[in-house]
Amino acid sequence: MSIIPPSVLRVLNNLRASTTLEAAQRKLEPQAGTRTPKKYLRAGRTVNASSVRALWRQIVSAKPAAATAQHQLADDETLETAEHYAGNIENMIGTVKLPVGVIGPLRINGMNANGDFIVPLATTEAALVASYHRGANLITAAGGASVAMVQEGVLRTPGFRFRSLLESGLFVDWVTREVEALQAAAEATTKHGKLIALEPVIDNDIVFLLCRYTTGDAAGQNMVTIATDALCRHIGAHCPIRALNWYIEANFSGDKKASYLGVITGRGRKVSASVMLPGALVSKHLHATIDDMLAYASMANLGSLLSGQLGAQAHYANGLAAFYIATGQDAACVAESAVGFTRMERRGDDLFVSVTLPNILVGSVGGGTRLPSQSAALDIFGLKGSGHGAALAEVAATVCLCGELSIVGAIAAGHFTRAHESLARHR
Amino acid sequence: MSIIPPSVLRVLNNLRASTTLEAAQRKLEPQAGTRTPKKYLRAGRTVNASSVRALWRQIVSAKPAAATAQHQLADDETLETAEHYAGNIENMIGTVKLPVGVIGPLRINGMNANGDFIVPLATTEAALVASYHRGANLITAAGGASVAMVQEGVLRTPGFRFRSLLESGLFVDWVTREVEALQAAAEATTKHGKLIALEPVIDNDIVFLLCRYTTGDAAGQNMVTIATDALCRHIGAHCPIRALNWYIEANFSGDKKASYLGVITGRGRKVSASVMLPGALVSKHLHATIDDMLAYASMANLGSLLSGQLGAQAHYANGLAAFYIATGQDAACVAESAVGFTRMERRGDDLFVSVTLPNILVGSVGGGTRLPSQSAALDIFGLKGSGHGAALAEVAATVCLCGELSIVGAIAAGHFTRAHESLARHR
Amino acid sequence: MSIIPPSVLRVLNNLRASTTLEAAQRKLEPQAGTRTPKKYLRAGRTVNASSVRALWRQIVSAKPAAATAQHQLADDETLETAEHYAGNIENMIGTVKLPVGVIGPLRINGMNANGDFIVPLATTEAALVASYHRGANLITAAGGASVAMVQEGVLRTPGFRFRSLLESGLFVDWVTREVEALQAAAEATTKHGKLIALEPVIDNDIVFLLCRYTTGDAAGQNMVTIATDALCRHIGAHCPIRALNWYIEANFSGDKKASYLGVITGRGRKVSASVMLPGALVSKHLHATIDDMLAYASMANLGSLLSGQLGAQAHYANGLAAFYIATGQDAACVAESAVGFTRMERRGDDLFVSVTLPNILVGSVGGGTRLPSQSAALDIFGLKGSGHGAALAEVAATVCLCGELSIVGAIAAGHFTRAHESLARHR
Amino acid sequence: MSIIPPSVLRVLNNLRASTTLEAAQRKLEPQAGTRTPKKYLRAGRTVNASSVRALWRQIVSAKPAAATAQHQLADDETLETAEHYAGNIENMIGTVKLPVGVIGPLRINGMNANGDFIVPLATTEAALVASYHRGANLITAAGGASVAMVQEGVLRTPGFRFRSLLESGLFVDWVTREVEALQAAAEATTKHGKLIALEPVIDNDIVFLLCRYTTGDAAGQNMVTIATDALCRHIGAHCPIRALNWYIEANFSGDKKASYLGVITGRGRKVSASVMLPGALVSKHLHATIDDMLAYASMANLGSLLSGQLGAQAHYANGLAAFYIATGQDAACVAESAVGFTRMERRGDDLFVSVTLPNILVGSVGGGTRLPSQSAALDIFGLKGSGHGAALAEVAATVCLCGELSIVGAIAAGHFTRAHESLARHR
Repeated sequence: MSIIPPSVLRVLNNLRASTTLEAAQRKLEPQAGTRTPKKYLRAGRTVNASSVRALWRQIVSAKPAAATAQHQLADDETLETAEHYAGNIENMIGTVKLPVGVIGPLRINGMNANGDFIVPLATTEAALVASYHRGANLITAAGGASVAMVQEGVLRTPGFRFRSLLESGLFVDWVTREVEALQAAAEATTKHGKLIALEPVIDNDIVFLLCRYTTGDAAGQNMVTIATDALCRHIGAHCPIRALNWYIEANFSGDKKASYLGVITGRGRKVSASVMLPGALVSKHLHATIDDMLAYASMANLGSLLSGQLGAQAHYANGLAAFYIATGQDAACVAESAVGFTRMERRGDDLFVSVTLPNILVGSVGGGTRLPSQSAALDIFGLKGSGHGAALAEVAATVCLCGELSIVGAIAAGHFTRAHESLARHR
Repeated sequence: MSIIPPSVLRVLNNLRASTTLEAAQRKLEPQAGTRTPKKYLRAGRTVNASSVRALWRQIVSAKPAAATAQHQLADDETLETAEHYAGNIENMIGTVKLPVGVIGPLRINGMNANGDFIVPLATTEAALVASYHRGANLITAAGGASVAMVQEGVLRTPGFRFRSLLESGLFVDWVTREVEALQAAAEATTKHGKLIALEPVIDNDIVFLLCRYTTGDAAGQNMVTIATDALCRHIGAHCPIRALNWYIEANFSGDKKASYLGVITGRGRKVSASVMLPGALVSKHLHATIDDMLAYASMANLGSLLSGQLGAQAHYANGLAAFYIATGQDAACVAESAVGFTRMERRGDDLFVSVTLPNILVGSVGGGTRLPSQSAALDIFGLKGSGHGAALAEVAATVCLCGELSIVGAIAAGHFTRAHESLARHR
Repeated sequence: MSIIPPSVLRVLNNLRASTTLEAAQRKLEPQAGTRTPKKYLRAGRTVNASSVRALWRQIVSAKPAAATAQHQLADDETLETAEHYAGNIENMIGTVKLPVGVIGPLRINGMNANGDFIVPLATTEAALVASYHRGANLITAAGGASVAMVQEGVLRTPGFRFRSLLESGLFVDWVTREVEALQAAAEATTKHGKLIALEPVIDNDIVFLLCRYTTGDAAGQNMVTIATDALCRHIGAHCPIRALNWYIEANFSGDKKASYLGVITGRGRKVSASVMLPGALVSKHLHATIDDMLAYASMANLGSLLSGQLGAQAHYANGLAAFYIATGQDAACVAESAVGFTRMERRGDDLFVSVTLPNILVGSVGGGTRLPSQSAALDIFGLKGSGHGAALAEVAATVCLCGELSIVGAIAAGHFTRAHESLARHR
Repeated sequence: MSIIPPSVLRVLNNLRASTTLEAAQRKLEPQAGTRTPKKYLRAGRTVNASSVRALWRQIVSAKPAAATAQHQLADDETLETAEHYAGNIENMIGTVKLPVGVIGPLRINGMNANGDFIVPLATTEAALVASYHRGANLITAAGGASVAMVQEGVLRTPGFRFRSLLESGLFVDWVTREVEALQAAAEATTKHGKLIALEPVIDNDIVFLLCRYTTGDAAGQNMVTIATDALCRHIGAHCPIRALNWYIEANFSGDKKASYLGVITGRGRKVSASVMLPGALVSKHLHATIDDMLAYASMANLGSLLSGQLGAQAHYANGLAAFYIATGQDAACVAESAVGFTRMERRGDDLFVSVTLPNILVGSVGGGTRLPSQSAALDIFGLKGSGHGAALAEVAATVCLCGELSIVGAIAAGHFTRAHESLARHR
């Protein structure tokens, strides 16, 4: 009985069988100037059909085998509309096409999103759309989900290093006295952003300044960066306590990262959605009883806790990634958005199910929302442009509720594997 | 001085100004049968041009305004190739187009990926590709990054509930005696998957059985589900200790979720990539000295810790999401993959930088890798099809290394805001 | 090569060798009424010499072998002073004696604690006091540590369950309008406690109400419970939105538990302490150079991150537990207090070291501070009674700083094992 | 409406009112040589009555007011037995006396602890013993708790830094080939310790080597340090891949720290304890129905999750700290032990309750177990000396079960505040 974990031995055995020390050394060492000349790809600031073609010439000259790829990525329609992408990409060589499926109509009784919505989801994973569609149908059959955005506030968290703890304290003191001017400096950069909280965190000679903003209808990551930069420059120009150095973001905000700060205080829009499901509807749509659902939910909750997840939920990331990609949101924000809490509880003969997501980062303006196909996807459910940021967040949360219902039902009923086997069968 | 947090007051004030209690009540309550008739969207199992058109008729009839969206999503090329997407989507209505930019050539001195790679990234966020490209150029100028996959093992974690702690113990005892048969049952379902570890976790009358697999060149999420289902059915058929209930996944594996289990034991492929950068190259490419980089890195590391992130890194999610989407990976896995550890250390006159990602979930086969444009994207750097799973993971990690270098340089040099302002200027 | 972890196999092998299934079953099943009659120990409310003796009679009658223990626990001095313990224990049978060692004089340049302190530490672990003493001497030799309490606020977090998300919102709305009355209700119960923040957290139909108090010179756990109870009763009496149920503590505050809430927002007193150490002093006292210290600190920081600790520090728990026990604090609070952040950085020829603890729970009044020997321990350094709560927290943090310096030095210099071997040699 | 959090403003206002900048500066700056001469306390290696008295002379000369404290700490009995403490403390000046209460008889149906136990708990917190006693009586009335140690393995985690990732890999390779010799080296230092797993974790050029031991009947922290030191020295003497530096503990093991590593893989002894409680007994003992208990448990579980606790439980730390202190265990280990999972579930007319603690660090030998009063405390329930380590861990877990039942009952029934008010009334 070896005391080395079997998975370690497995990796080592494979390596020993497939390589030698000398070969490994050769592979891993720096290769300065010994291979292809270092010609980096170069593209001007302009993005248009001709810039795309120019890049392809460079690619194909370096990698002739890549030639066959060109027309799939740089198809005619993409070339014709290339200029539309200019503010969203650099070194553009074309577009990748992700299939979009729809779910619904999903009845949402929301403070901001209210009505029956057909929601587009972009994914390459079989069974995902079918599963969320199943959840949507169940919710709609039950009269819809109650949903509200209960909080909002995108963070940017500059960090300032001083000479001592005393200076940290004096700096915080100055900030609290200067708060109107700081607010003015930040808000001067934006029509829609509002600085709603300034929360200092001291670690001895370092001060993190949590700047929390509402961002109108935009997701707002750039908006808060620019506003905070102005705020920091105001500090630099006026604060008598001079920082040794400072940074626009001290890696504290949880931007693009799951964090307990996000779980506890929220980042972006916090939305809670719930539905009350009669037992008969649950059985009809999910082939599982309320007791089946609860028995699984209780074990799943334990699984979350024991494996050190942030919150407890089944697969928000699936619905969020598909919704974010379809509607021109920042897909990287799935990393921070896909945390939260799914609850399932018996209420008499009904099943109460809720999801609460503290960090939804979506916008109905800005980002990729005005790109041709993303904009079209937003048109399907009509939440494009000004006035729809909060509604979009409510739809995102309700989509997650669909997914939680469906997957919990599938696992509780023992259908999970079968769905994946059968729907991916065409591959 | 109110003792209520200002952000709470802000939300409440907005609500009070914009709605009444009666209006809110009306909005939030279930709306069974009172609005549009509940006609769910229906699509057959077939995906082709005609199924796409049929769904659009349903959408437009429910939502006439959606008509304008049709040709952007269901363009001619998409309609012609619709059948290719059949195994990857349900209820398909078209494709969404994400712009793809390239970075590189990125010199990778990897155990599996070895050479100069032009890497496609799909994103709608301005500055992302430019930033990663900058990092790639720096790495290549320094002779490339050393990279190795050091571990692999996708988890599926069924859960079993028994009558007592004693039965849990007897079950674990039985499993350890029956391990060859369980391995055989699981591996009979797959040509490439291997069950490499079976790790039981007992919580009184519940046993979580961590099943860890290598998955060949596939990301392997479906593969491990099917194999584990077979393993569980073998248990059901043969184990004398009968579970009260069991589930194929007890929400323990970290599938689509950031978790400490993933951070500590890894899920998917664990890859470490590093580069040694002469100070002069750092200054030339990033306009920051090594000391500048380290001063920021130290504060950023503290920011990670104080805000409760898993690991410490700047923005793996950006690179991973863009790489996953471009190459047909599961974008939802960004939620679990975007954790890990970036280190920056001075080594004489050089800067050592490494990234280690314990949970990379990529495949060179399966998932969306065979779709037209995704397959083309893989062709650009030549890691498509059998034999390239590990290499793909090494590229993914090196892309993250590019991004870490570039963003740390930008923040350290004070250029972060400016890059975003200027590159998003066309919007 | 088995795929079962070796540690699991080990446990099973031991069990198989030492027991049978039948024996295990017999051991684990409920034994109602089959053994000794169920006579629970009974002690009246009074605590004095005679109540102690009465309990011993019951114990010895149930367990004759326990008789020899009586005089060690219920020694003459304990019996004579038994009444002093009446407000701190029930079912009292005596006292346990923990050895107390002293460190110092420790020079503390604190906002509240200022001077040279001899600090008593109670522990049964060899080498602990010697190690902290070494750190104290180094700090004093360098002119002392700069220390300040930068924040305070003990939490109690009642939870309220309503009928719907809407009611949750209405409740929060009511709370924000009624804040003065709530504050008055809470503060009417206490001379020293002040309610300084009311932070609602909504999870659909549940509202957690984070009540944050300053607690004067007491640790304040009971004070905030009683004040919050009054606050809740005011809500019950006056709030038109009736909770379905509510609880004085919804397990959200982090009371007696490490939590990210505590790490991020603080619970109790947050103190930061630092010292600037000339390299020569480091070498003289710790037998390690600054570079040695930093090399280890960097790996230790990585270890913290990779193993999922809250914050990054070496062993605050050792110093805190010993200090809490010696001075009559609540030793269980070590669970929440022993988190935070140790930083070590080079500053020219000096080593900067800081510790920041967000959750120190100590009081110079209340709890066990007025018990005979605990009160005496406080007398040694003169921070007993009113006016010393913040100072006590600053001493606690500085003690942790002593411990961090010493252990990092010992491990960096390779002396860690030796110290433990040699100092525990008398056992 | 200020955007600064009210608790920050409160602290600043207090500071502004109570100090000036100049005063603060004076307080915080280093005070080298300006105050009392730096005479550190000096005590020889010997611990006896005369060494204790010698230290008191130094203390009183530095701090005359401390004189009154002497006889409380250095009482006659302590002076007479001072030599007994020699292996457990340095700079000894006396003993602190903590009151000890008893609970029980607690019926434990354990694999290792089996019978009716009277358990001593040392605490200065009113209501704690009464509360645990209540839980114990309920468990005993129900026929006792089923308990088993299901896993054990104390960790020590040395870290090794190499020149490159390749060297890390070669080192791991060497370790796996040399495993018998390493095991022999480690186990040669101890009669009872066994090295049961060696788990390498690579972060590029650093390898953490998780060494997992069973430690016989000792808690084993020193045992594993000494064994691992020998293991590392064997590596140093024989491994051809030379580490740039290495450390006996790379802050990865979770020693004295709550960590997800501990939650997931366990550190020390993992014990699960449960009880099945008829509803009538619950009502009689706790004045709450099963439904009351479950309603609270569900909210408390959510509170754990939303506030970022490790696991979900109410107050293990209270029971563990009191049990550890009474029985001579290391109280600092409460920081790592007080995590785990409490479950409450309805089973027909019964309430099932379980606790699972993955990191119990207790020993029936070693540490403080042989000190006079601690040894006496162990005598009360008869688990002293060889052969009782696992049993002791089972008792510790069952004590936690008592506490969970009682506090959940108290909060569910609304009695929590009252108990604390009334039992602390004598102060």
